[in-house]
Amino acid sequence: MVSADALVARLAADRARVDARLESLFTERAAPSPRLEAAMRHALLVGGKRLRPVLVYTAGRALGAVEDDLDAPAMALELIHAYSLVHDDLPAMDDDDLRRGQPTVHRAYDEATAILAGDALQALAFEVLAASEHPRVGALIAGLARAAGRDGMVAGQALDLAAVGGHPQVAALAAMHGHKTGALIRVAVRLGGLVAVDETDPRLAALDAYADAIGLAFQIHDDVLDVTGDTATLGKTSGADAARAKPTYPSLLGLEGARRRALDLVETGVAALAPLGEDAAPLADLARYMIERDH
Amino acid sequence: MVSADALVARLAADRARVDARLESLFTERAAPSPRLEAAMRHALLVGGKRLRPVLVYTAGRALGAVEDDLDAPAMALELIHAYSLVHDDLPAMDDDDLRRGQPTVHRAYDEATAILAGDALQALAFEVLAASEHPRVGALIAGLARAAGRDGMVAGQALDLAAVGGHPQVAALAAMHGHKTGALIRVAVRLGGLVAVDETDPRLAALDAYADAIGLAFQIHDDVLDVTGDTATLGKTSGADAARAKPTYPSLLGLEGARRRALDLVETGVAALAPLGEDAAPLADLARYMIERDH
Repeated sequence: MVSADALVARLAADRARVDARLESLFTERAAPSPRLEAAMRHALLVGGKRLRPVLVYTAGRALGAVEDDLDAPAMALELIHAYSLVHDDLPAMDDDDLRRGQPTVHRAYDEATAILAGDALQALAFEVLAASEHPRVGALIAGLARAAGRDGMVAGQALDLAAVGGHPQVAALAAMHGHKTGALIRVAVRLGGLVAVDETDPRLAALDAYADAIGLAFQIHDDVLDVTGDTATLGKTSGADAARAKPTYPSLLGLEGARRRALDLVETGVAALAPLGEDAAPLADLARYMIERDH
Repeated sequence: MVSADALVARLAADRARVDARLESLFTERAAPSPRLEAAMRHALLVGGKRLRPVLVYTAGRALGAVEDDLDAPAMALELIHAYSLVHDDLPAMDDDDLRRGQPTVHRAYDEATAILAGDALQALAFEVLAASEHPRVGALIAGLARAAGRDGMVAGQALDLAAVGGHPQVAALAAMHGHKTGALIRVAVRLGGLVAVDETDPRLAALDAYADAIGLAFQIHDDVLDVTGDTATLGKTSGADAARAKPTYPSLLGLEGARRRALDLVETGVAALAPLGEDAAPLADLARYMIERDH
């Protein structure tokens, strides 16, 4: 376990690295539609914790990947995440006005532009990954597409919409989050690993188990923050889940029960890393950090 | 030049082939969100000319590809096209009630489900293509993603929205269509070719020139049909462009002028195929057929 300062410095370096590469997607080019381009930039470059890119870098390094090979998957993950936020915020979905402390894309531009900006960010994720020329590019893209689509993130959002106002049990809530946020967190960790090793390497299964546990812990902590955080710190409207009668972990387990569940999951995830030995330490540090953050 | 009957039979065979493969994407699987899945099926499998898959097959065969290798790009092109129609029809965009003779997805389901179904269809396009394990899978996916995104189709839709109620010249209209429909038609032809030969083959440039010309001809013919067709034959609301004050080729060139422009473009496209010799005949037949259809 490293010092908290060292962890924070490493996170900051990874964020700065992926931010610089994402920024470069918008420079030195003649955009056919400048308004579309500006909306994409707004969605992608205004704030954001960059958790998924950080997971790509941290998992990849743990298995011996070089950072240059991790940039494309790190960018692709953030592009998919950014597109999903734009579409989730739309009036027909969660109808949110604020995201990362700024107006949501449909508020800053308009609804049609927000739909199109999301669509273009998704295409750009696959373009960036396809252009990486990694020898396992097919497996990387197939993995990302599956995690992002009807078996993963999009299905989770559909399940989430269907759940509003309902009374699901903890198992149903875990299944929804497993798709909505879990699939993308899992594939972030897996793509990092897959850059370094091929699909037969048994350490990938350890990474999967780690990612499944911390993905859910992350979501539970998000639910907790929605209750305990304030809008200014969160950068999005606090209390939004309760206002929308969305089922959450605190509503089902109580605030303390939810906190305990998140802690247990992190320890489960860290334990799953045993096959990686000492190389896993940064992944363990990151998991613990993820449920200590205040935004 | 083959007989019209032979051409029609070949088109029907290609359509049946891609339809069977698209249908198979929805069988023998447990969908996490059955409602999302049903909306995707509705968008993809109810009607449709399958022009883009037909272009993939026809271009690929002209350069010697085997049909089994063309299935994945053919499916991917139709998946991207289907997603774009679902999103274009949304209330915030063109607000259409009818598509391919059926209620649009947001009418048959709801707006949120339509947004998500489009998102999932886009991801599925890349998943199908990535799973094909073609040796040039990176180039195929990069090409499709570029054509579908901010430099192609999505930019075209953004330009189209911006143009409503304006008075663009023919050049601006051609630029808009070059992105909105042209980019996808061009990449359909190119991916077919790229399955057979690598990027250094000079015949790909001939295919590009062909595709640029017929893509625009196709769009002009679509504009003409919006004026001369009836809703039942078109399967979408006729006269919709005029009702929306959308600039069109007939409005700028007159109906006869638009028809003549489409014919000229098809002959330009056919002439560009000269380097392919006799192998190009089915592509030439298809180009002529595209501006004779009545829906």
